[in-house]
Amino acid sequence: MNFTNDDAAKLLKIIKARRDVRGNRFISQAIEDEKLHMILEAGIHAPSVGYSQPWKFVIIKDKKIKNELLENFEGENSTAKEIFSERELYKNLKLEGIMEAPVNIAVLYEPKEEAVLGMTSMKKMGEYSVVCAVQNMWLMARALNIGIGWVSILDEAKVLKSLRCEKNSQLIAYLCVGYVDEFYKESELKTLGWERERVLEDVLSTSYADR
Amino acid sequence: MNFTNDDAAKLLKIIKARRDVRGNRFISQAIEDEKLHMILEAGIHAPSVGYSQPWKFVIIKDKKIKNELLENFEGENSTAKEIFSERELYKNLKLEGIMEAPVNIAVLYEPKEEAVLGMTSMKKMGEYSVVCAVQNMWLMARALNIGIGWVSILDEAKVLKSLRCEKNSQLIAYLCVGYVDEFYKESELKTLGWERERVLEDVLSTSYADR
Repeated sequence: MNFTNDDAAKLLKIIKARRDVRGNRFISQAIEDEKLHMILEAGIHAPSVGYSQPWKFVIIKDKKIKNELLENFEGENSTAKEIFSERELYKNLKLEGIMEAPVNIAVLYEPKEEAVLGMTSMKKMGEYSVVCAVQNMWLMARALNIGIGWVSILDEAKVLKSLRCEKNSQLIAYLCVGYVDEFYKESELKTLGWERERVLEDVLSTSYADR
Repeated sequence: MNFTNDDAAKLLKIIKARRDVRGNRFISQAIEDEKLHMILEAGIHAPSVGYSQPWKFVIIKDKKIKNELLENFEGENSTAKEIFSERELYKNLKLEGIMEAPVNIAVLYEPKEEAVLGMTSMKKMGEYSVVCAVQNMWLMARALNIGIGWVSILDEAKVLKSLRCEKNSQLIAYLCVGYVDEFYKESELKTLGWERERVLEDVLSTSYADR
């Protein structure tokens, strides 16, 4: 299948319009089953090392479990507030949307016991495959005008316990998923001056032999 | 900005048409600068923890360096062949396209010295941000009808030495990038029966409280 220049331009628009959404932007409107299905389909069509597809997706809507997750976040974030005590902005940031988002998805990595093709040298390739699935889901959600926020200020072991996961599971991402009242035009952390944008020239180099 | 159902369907097509491309499919046709630029633009618009943008992209075209990388691969792959000695198929697989692809890109993670928002609990979020950039690049390339192969059978320390990278850099992905004579309809490892496809029902669950 060949894609057109218009298709490529559209993809770049989706990529640039994707945002990390927090609880101040989610609305309560339910996500249609077929849209959630498209988001998950995007996830399972991610690349995976040795075609191992080592992902698992746990859908969470129950308020009690979400509450446990929120408590988990609040505990971790109180430590984080101390770490960033010299940056006044930190404590005013809304950094999760666990209760506000109608759907939460825990994305897990389930390592295989046997050897995996492509993982014999670089051992983290399994985890990285799961991250590729998360990024596919994030883009797919954006194309459906649905927001996703990745919450990482969590104690992983407690999350796995709250969700009663298999012993060998690893948490890769905890996602809050829902419709939004607005997608910001740019990263909120850029707008608020937390961190500067790095343009291509800042992060690109050619190998010394090609210079 | 609102996207349409057609946009979402198109994105899902791109996601499903993306393949891991090896040396038997790359052709020598040069990649236009503006297309390489679009691929890299897709990379730097990935999500990153705390808007840290901790990525670096090293473009490699020089044959001597590519040769060093190929030797690196061959050393690691001879170990891998022993690991998979009971699966005849392994030794017949072409698992890289370092020389055949006109452009190679090493995607590095450059950790910050100071604390990063969102990384205070889950320490791997910086690496994961770089993986999101790789996935954006992979999809963008596919929309431009350009193939990418992720080579992971490499000794990371030797790669960093070959590229004379900064001391604190970490290799996340080594990508082979080029036009192809064909994109396979499905993963080659599925076609060849190396690993079975897992469908959504195999990898999806709801939290125990939502059952």
